[in-house]
Amino acid sequence: MELPELLVIHPAPVFIIHQQQFSQKFKLLKAYESPLSTKHFLQTHAQSTKALICYGKSPITSDILRRLPSLKLVVTASTGFNHIDLPECRRRGIAVANTADVFSEDTADIGVGLLIDVLGKISSGDRFVRTGIWPKNIYYPLGSKLRGKHVGIVDLGNIGLKVAIRLEAFGCKISYNSRQKKPVPYNFYPNVCELALTCNILVICCTLTVETRHLIDKDVLKALGKDGILNNIARGPIVDEKELVKFLVEGEIAGAGLDVFENEPKVPQELIALDNVVLTPHRAAFTEEAFRDAFQLVLANLEAFFSNIPLISPVIDE
Amino acid sequence: MELPELLVIHPAPVFIIHQQQFSQKFKLLKAYESPLSTKHFLQTHAQSTKALICYGKSPITSDILRRLPSLKLVVTASTGFNHIDLPECRRRGIAVANTADVFSEDTADIGVGLLIDVLGKISSGDRFVRTGIWPKNIYYPLGSKLRGKHVGIVDLGNIGLKVAIRLEAFGCKISYNSRQKKPVPYNFYPNVCELALTCNILVICCTLTVETRHLIDKDVLKALGKDGILNNIARGPIVDEKELVKFLVEGEIAGAGLDVFENEPKVPQELIALDNVVLTPHRAAFTEEAFRDAFQLVLANLEAFFSNIPLISPVIDE
Repeated sequence: MELPELLVIHPAPVFIIHQQQFSQKFKLLKAYESPLSTKHFLQTHAQSTKALICYGKSPITSDILRRLPSLKLVVTASTGFNHIDLPECRRRGIAVANTADVFSEDTADIGVGLLIDVLGKISSGDRFVRTGIWPKNIYYPLGSKLRGKHVGIVDLGNIGLKVAIRLEAFGCKISYNSRQKKPVPYNFYPNVCELALTCNILVICCTLTVETRHLIDKDVLKALGKDGILNNIARGPIVDEKELVKFLVEGEIAGAGLDVFENEPKVPQELIALDNVVLTPHRAAFTEEAFRDAFQLVLANLEAFFSNIPLISPVIDE
Repeated sequence: MELPELLVIHPAPVFIIHQQQFSQKFKLLKAYESPLSTKHFLQTHAQSTKALICYGKSPITSDILRRLPSLKLVVTASTGFNHIDLPECRRRGIAVANTADVFSEDTADIGVGLLIDVLGKISSGDRFVRTGIWPKNIYYPLGSKLRGKHVGIVDLGNIGLKVAIRLEAFGCKISYNSRQKKPVPYNFYPNVCELALTCNILVICCTLTVETRHLIDKDVLKALGKDGILNNIARGPIVDEKELVKFLVEGEIAGAGLDVFENEPKVPQELIALDNVVLTPHRAAFTEEAFRDAFQLVLANLEAFFSNIPLISPVIDE
């Protein structure tokens, strides 16, 4: 029996790690390994390609969709889907599936971990120990207490709520910003600046959209203030990175925990020179278990599609 | 009016940071700044010294107590008091006060922070970003999920319980070891080896006593196993560090988060060479807020003593 075809323009990390298993279930059409240009590769497989797998760094544009007239399913090995032209998919009757919230628990964990790290100076303490300074200088600067801090969650969605619930267990006070007030026992601020003005810490949990690009700008950072800490576990471009660097370098905010950057994998040298920031390489969701769950969900959606049964985690285009 | 005398043999970090405030309230007898030997310094002030302040690294032995016949109060700027000869204090009618649990919330926070760090590779990710490798190698190893992990708390005391409550919010399963079963909804293991055998992670929260020295030995580490993680936020000598190093170097356990070491501030070079350990310089409790609280409690005990009213946080010698 012939395996169904699966187009891979650029390989998602989840795909790379589980490639062996994918290859047992599908005939993989790997554009990225072909000597042909992507355009020609797509042209070659245009008539047969019914399904493709993508991820955040492999955009599915209207141009790509136009070149694949037989395409009926786009599966993204990610929770976010702003790299997919959803209106064009809808117009062409192409279904879209994502990995639902398989990454949200781990992302929330890293959100909290980065916060404890920045306040308690864990990574900088680790650096201090590894450079061998400790025996010569036993007085390392004090950290700052998490308990009692007022944390502002920027977008109390799936991940934001998980961060909030965890931080409650640490004795933090929680407020949030979202498009709408939610049925939660936290203070709601419709304006991010007002949230920043009230809070010691902001944790960015929103998706990247045209509206949220540079949502965290000069005004928000100013409102956060000299003792404020900014954590970003969402997407780099939500923060105006140039301004953030300036505020950090000039000591106009106290620190930052950043898992994402505006021009990943490029990280501004000014940040690397600072001791009061923790910089991780877009790792929040990257656990073995979440990758396995994501793989299984991608596979389940593909199998559902090829068996003509409803998708497990379809993206609903609002 | 003359200020009451306060003897300081070696200065505690809390004392150093709040020295100015102490000097406004007391006539400080600083043995560590005197050209005299400690022995001679004590001899000079033997008749007048009624109160002294100490901390973990400034032991109050029977020899010191013998040299201070007028001493009536020992205040330690720490929660632990195993550096004070309590039976000898009792024999001589000397009261002892500590800083109660002012450090326990922060210590529990760092316990959780170290765990998220080891599992999610935060400090090692930060190192990866800072060395500039990310743009050349975007595939950083996956971390491990916290949710669903079975965490064993070694001594469910004040700090252990705080760690447990926090980790419950992350979806961890909690078991514990203690001298006695406690009225908590966690599984009790009277034997540390059995606890290690059942759990993915051990968090050491017990005090250092003759019984707990090297409690975490070869057998416990073997029971913890290849995928196991050890976190120590208590005291270095509770772990047989030589064995721990061996298990880590040989990959017989998966990682460690260590805020304390057997011969602080010396840290074994083998640990520094590893990427799967997070090493902080005995920082768990060291926040500005906790130090301020500790200062206030030390001060309140001293003021109570000199006003002949009951101590605020006396140590009861059982």
